[in-house]
Amino acid sequence: MTSAHQVVAAYWAAAQARDWARFADLVAEHVVYEAPQTRERVRGRAAYLRFNIEGFPGDWHLAVERIIGEDRHAASWIQFTGEGGTQPGLCYFDLDDDRIARITDFWPDPYELPGARAHLVERY
Amino acid sequence: MTSAHQVVAAYWAAAQARDWARFADLVAEHVVYEAPQTRERVRGRAAYLRFNIEGFPGDWHLAVERIIGEDRHAASWIQFTGEGGTQPGLCYFDLDDDRIARITDFWPDPYELPGARAHLVERY
Repeated sequence: MTSAHQVVAAYWAAAQARDWARFADLVAEHVVYEAPQTRERVRGRAAYLRFNIEGFPGDWHLAVERIIGEDRHAASWIQFTGEGGTQPGLCYFDLDDDRIARITDFWPDPYELPGARAHLVERY
Repeated sequence: MTSAHQVVAAYWAAAQARDWARFADLVAEHVVYEAPQTRERVRGRAAYLRFNIEGFPGDWHLAVERIIGEDRHAASWIQFTGEGGTQPGLCYFDLDDDRIARITDFWPDPYELPGARAHLVERY
């Protein structure tokens, strides 16, 4: 069995390479993708492939900051650079055997530091 | 050696219990906390303890959705409920021995679904 870490590393490498055949082979036929911030959901390999190929127009690239895998679960933190600049992307994965069956995806935006804790931190 | 998963589970349990002595013991003397969205940084155990005790006024509780640990690294996804409602909190941890030495913390907010991919998803 391939480790969850290895499967997720291959997934991001395939996305970056636009190797959509490889990408599709890494996700389960019944994969479910959810993005809680927008309450988006995509169900099934064919729909998820189309979402990735067509849903992010323009040039983009991604760099992996961290992949952590344990049993059939993994988390990743990537830096995604597209037309709007660079943004962190955070994903949590659940695998069935060697394929990704569930993806929960977060895209945090910058926000203003709350005044209540401003005296407790430094800025960088 | 305690697994990174176990250390992070104990860290969130201590925070939820306001067991600040236990919480402090789980982080390294030289711990560095960063929140990339606001570019906040807190350095050292004493400052980090104060940040947690004083920086989040009002009642709050947290529930762990997922902890994933691998070697001396871990990721967590919690649901934090405070005065502003419930929000996901996503953290990446690096350990030195059995203590947390580095924390990168993200708080994603809801945002509008981009029109370019609206036809590729369902909503929930």
